[in-house]
Amino acid sequence: MTGEQPSAALDAFEERFRRLSNWGRWGPDDQRGALNLITADKVRRASTLVRRGRTFSLQLPLDEHGPQTGAFGRVNPVHQMVATGTDHAAGAQEYGMGWGYADDSLFLYLQGGTQWDALAHIFRDGRMYNGYPASLVTSKGAARNGVEHYATLATRGVLLDLPRLLGRPYLEPGEGVGPELLEAACQRQGVEVEPGDIVLLRTGDMARRRRLPQWDGYAAGDAPGLTIASTDWLAAHDVAGVASDTWGVEVRPNELPGSFQPVHLLLVVAMGLAVGEIWHLDDLAADCAEDGVYEFLLVAPALVIPGAVGSPVNPQALK
Amino acid sequence: MTGEQPSAALDAFEERFRRLSNWGRWGPDDQRGALNLITADKVRRASTLVRRGRTFSLQLPLDEHGPQTGAFGRVNPVHQMVATGTDHAAGAQEYGMGWGYADDSLFLYLQGGTQWDALAHIFRDGRMYNGYPASLVTSKGAARNGVEHYATLATRGVLLDLPRLLGRPYLEPGEGVGPELLEAACQRQGVEVEPGDIVLLRTGDMARRRRLPQWDGYAAGDAPGLTIASTDWLAAHDVAGVASDTWGVEVRPNELPGSFQPVHLLLVVAMGLAVGEIWHLDDLAADCAEDGVYEFLLVAPALVIPGAVGSPVNPQALK
Amino acid sequence: MTGEQPSAALDAFEERFRRLSNWGRWGPDDQRGALNLITADKVRRASTLVRRGRTFSLQLPLDEHGPQTGAFGRVNPVHQMVATGTDHAAGAQEYGMGWGYADDSLFLYLQGGTQWDALAHIFRDGRMYNGYPASLVTSKGAARNGVEHYATLATRGVLLDLPRLLGRPYLEPGEGVGPELLEAACQRQGVEVEPGDIVLLRTGDMARRRRLPQWDGYAAGDAPGLTIASTDWLAAHDVAGVASDTWGVEVRPNELPGSFQPVHLLLVVAMGLAVGEIWHLDDLAADCAEDGVYEFLLVAPALVIPGAVGSPVNPQALK
Amino acid sequence: MTGEQPSAALDAFEERFRRLSNWGRWGPDDQRGALNLITADKVRRASTLVRRGRTFSLQLPLDEHGPQTGAFGRVNPVHQMVATGTDHAAGAQEYGMGWGYADDSLFLYLQGGTQWDALAHIFRDGRMYNGYPASLVTSKGAARNGVEHYATLATRGVLLDLPRLLGRPYLEPGEGVGPELLEAACQRQGVEVEPGDIVLLRTGDMARRRRLPQWDGYAAGDAPGLTIASTDWLAAHDVAGVASDTWGVEVRPNELPGSFQPVHLLLVVAMGLAVGEIWHLDDLAADCAEDGVYEFLLVAPALVIPGAVGSPVNPQALK
Repeated sequence: MTGEQPSAALDAFEERFRRLSNWGRWGPDDQRGALNLITADKVRRASTLVRRGRTFSLQLPLDEHGPQTGAFGRVNPVHQMVATGTDHAAGAQEYGMGWGYADDSLFLYLQGGTQWDALAHIFRDGRMYNGYPASLVTSKGAARNGVEHYATLATRGVLLDLPRLLGRPYLEPGEGVGPELLEAACQRQGVEVEPGDIVLLRTGDMARRRRLPQWDGYAAGDAPGLTIASTDWLAAHDVAGVASDTWGVEVRPNELPGSFQPVHLLLVVAMGLAVGEIWHLDDLAADCAEDGVYEFLLVAPALVIPGAVGSPVNPQALK
Repeated sequence: MTGEQPSAALDAFEERFRRLSNWGRWGPDDQRGALNLITADKVRRASTLVRRGRTFSLQLPLDEHGPQTGAFGRVNPVHQMVATGTDHAAGAQEYGMGWGYADDSLFLYLQGGTQWDALAHIFRDGRMYNGYPASLVTSKGAARNGVEHYATLATRGVLLDLPRLLGRPYLEPGEGVGPELLEAACQRQGVEVEPGDIVLLRTGDMARRRRLPQWDGYAAGDAPGLTIASTDWLAAHDVAGVASDTWGVEVRPNELPGSFQPVHLLLVVAMGLAVGEIWHLDDLAADCAEDGVYEFLLVAPALVIPGAVGSPVNPQALK
Repeated sequence: MTGEQPSAALDAFEERFRRLSNWGRWGPDDQRGALNLITADKVRRASTLVRRGRTFSLQLPLDEHGPQTGAFGRVNPVHQMVATGTDHAAGAQEYGMGWGYADDSLFLYLQGGTQWDALAHIFRDGRMYNGYPASLVTSKGAARNGVEHYATLATRGVLLDLPRLLGRPYLEPGEGVGPELLEAACQRQGVEVEPGDIVLLRTGDMARRRRLPQWDGYAAGDAPGLTIASTDWLAAHDVAGVASDTWGVEVRPNELPGSFQPVHLLLVVAMGLAVGEIWHLDDLAADCAEDGVYEFLLVAPALVIPGAVGSPVNPQALK
Repeated sequence: MTGEQPSAALDAFEERFRRLSNWGRWGPDDQRGALNLITADKVRRASTLVRRGRTFSLQLPLDEHGPQTGAFGRVNPVHQMVATGTDHAAGAQEYGMGWGYADDSLFLYLQGGTQWDALAHIFRDGRMYNGYPASLVTSKGAARNGVEHYATLATRGVLLDLPRLLGRPYLEPGEGVGPELLEAACQRQGVEVEPGDIVLLRTGDMARRRRLPQWDGYAAGDAPGLTIASTDWLAAHDVAGVASDTWGVEVRPNELPGSFQPVHLLLVVAMGLAVGEIWHLDDLAADCAEDGVYEFLLVAPALVIPGAVGSPVNPQALK
């Protein structure tokens, strides 16, 4: 499968995969990965970041205007009414005392909007995070590493606003975000990334493409994002996770010719990080720019869907 | 419709509906209801309740073991895999570098599990909260009072553990929770309910029925819960919302003969409270019993589903 | 609503609506409409048209390559596997004797592919076919005129191949098919349309657009099709129904300024015809061109979905 | 897997599997199986069976009253309205000339109601009909033996009404239907089963259980049906398919201890028969009893769902 790769790049990738691996770090039965870095003390300290009492939602609306255009079979969510106020108004609901109601349903791809990847979302050579066989993820769901292990999630969040750093409205598709850029953003913003943090990486990609026809190739197309080298920086800071306003967090075209999303192999499979995609960071970024504070309490649990390999999330940033 | 009701009870209900009404209180265009009581200062103070750094999920798993048995057409969620590890293991996914992935989808009734009712969920005589016509809730969704107005939600939560108060494992179906019981729980627990709080009402009903066949009539059957009179107490304390471990928060059989869920008319339509149902409060309750602290930071936003009349939620209680 | 229409055109439309109306023709409780014209004798005679024993499917594949691009909220069907052969191969299915299975599900818009409109699909001024109030079609489905009344359907089918008649590969969007063209096609093909027949109208529109990006506006865009005047011809021949290879059977842009699908009001609401859309007529047409026989036994029941307002159908033409 | 089986029974099963196998009979690339037995001449002759012009639907309604209770994850279909007459009546649909419409969607398990099994539905030891690897049936569907190969289906149908033969209202769960009973039914009814026929096997099981709570275990429970030995009879008569009014066509409890649906291995995997389940045969049976004619034209194509392993079907019997 990998025969056409330049062997030096492959060897380096392989070395990095092994070096950054967290397999076994939290025990052979662990299914929570780097979220284990969020200790009770970490949560307590993160809560002290709520200084002004402002709450921000980082979720893109779950509707037909979402970014999905069919890649990987994903379509935007389908919201359907099961009972309506027009039925009530027409006298078609028969309850006493003028009582009426509306009900509804939703069909959604769990990777379709603002989401967490579960640790069962990505495989390498038949294995997933912590060494479990990929074949444990069957048509019945993930017997290991399901998204239900993200049922609680509160920690310190740090926003790195790259367009602001660079003095441009957005990063270009194909523009890589490496360790130097991450470090520069921290320094410019006067913030340090610490163990157990979740880093929110704003590229401006969503803001730019969201209103364009078909989102201008946002889903599965070229995008700005993390480089392979950036994973060293994330590992050095021992973050619990990373989320971005792009479709796939990592830079595309991918850095290794012939590969697809190699950074996912490092982040999800090797390191067991919580990876968040399609996050809506613009309102929060505007506020951070205004008050100069880029850290906050981030509360962003997955829905408890046993065996799921992803989950929609409405992350709350409390400042 | 209401001819068979004793006129005194009806008159009293009507008087209470008018007296407790919050229509117009937050302006003629308001769609957020009592969540307006959650000020920035309220959020800030609530964050100081995170003392030990413990996080609790209050969501029942979203799976086929849920409480729905067909009432109101609702069925339990359907989780389906779109790509699997077995496909990857069988070599059916063609990516370089041994890369593989799993994807999935979910179909769910938005009223089917741990949820928020939107203010567009309940009507009375052709109107919903703040006086909007029910006919604004069409097959295309709610043009007013949709659940997207609950996109941010962080405040102080207070758990009232009624079985513990009464020295019994659970309240019985049909057992009403009135103002006296609510007050007694507060005093016993040494906690005061304040404006902008969300009250979590544990009845033990979920814990008792969850493992029984078909949940023993939990959905749409008789249940313990709030009485009509309890709404005065909630109004007097100016709470932002109330959630419970039952199917419908209010006592059933309903107190007015021939009526269905009259308390919903008061809570949702008149007062504009956030009403949460099917919340899983048992783990949190055990912890509160242990440390004697029944207040916490509650972070429980709805998913941002524009025009939806309900939403699943994974509420986080941070102590 | 109709004030901006030229009054002469409107008056003529109104007159035609009344003149062609079949309301009451098959009794005040009828819900089957013009399918009543298919008598047992009609079926028997139609069966004699099976001369060579050839069977044709007239259904477009129900898959993600379908014509829907979001108009009216419709998306193409979503087929999902519930159990797979890769699960079986991976040993994840635990049955004795090497037994394994695959299962699947489908989510589809009932108007999304090759389909029948139910008589409850279209309304005019609050009424549907046979005078039933539109308000009988609630969130719970159609209490009258549902597609389950098309549970049996076998009759004589007649294909009118208009591109062949005109010596062109397809009719253009906006090109109307009036009584003269219908009559000319019959004469050219040596076939007469009789009471109880279902007329299949081939325009070539599907063949032309099917492979183009987004089907080149096929769904809800301009299209060739029946004119208002053509309804007189259909009525004079007392057909049971009409189906076409276009999105909506009738010509678009619509003939009355400011109106949408006025021919549907005549065909469905007034006349109670079975109207079929997005039918795949090309293979059948090629065979008819070859043997010169344009009549056949058509067996095309709806699925029995009680209360549905449309249904997918795999029509079989037996020659 | 099979160690606990009496070896004689297993050997006999294995011998029968090999003896009845049709792998390769219609070429190494065949995906249509025994439907190949339906020649043009067969269709032509079958059409002459339409003597009275009566049409019967053999489909159970696709609704929430169906037989599924969760076995194999299957639930009954979910029909949802996307646009309603109450919306139209409330003035919420903005079209000129009083035009209004209703739309809807359906979510269904393809094995949930009256259906055809595709040849990709059942595996044995990693293989499906004609020897294709089971691993060709992935999360993306069946790359071989999908139900789209049943896109045309018209042939002679023969109803064998077993309760009528036995003078009882229904066969009991666990009651096997072997070659003798099949032969006796033919003789009693004065009908002969011929190559290319589809045999409809009425047991009365649906009629008995349909109105009972949860269908009294109809789905995946014990049932009357075909025995292992009956497959010899079906092979001897070279039928194209067999359908029944039970959940699974074959007798349950299954005849080989520790096995699940061994007859499916013979019918589907070895012989490549079209197998129909949950067919509603009662109305047709009543008519056959009345006129004494048990043969008819059967038109019963699958929906054209590429890669699907099953399909709903509304079979039409024309007499």
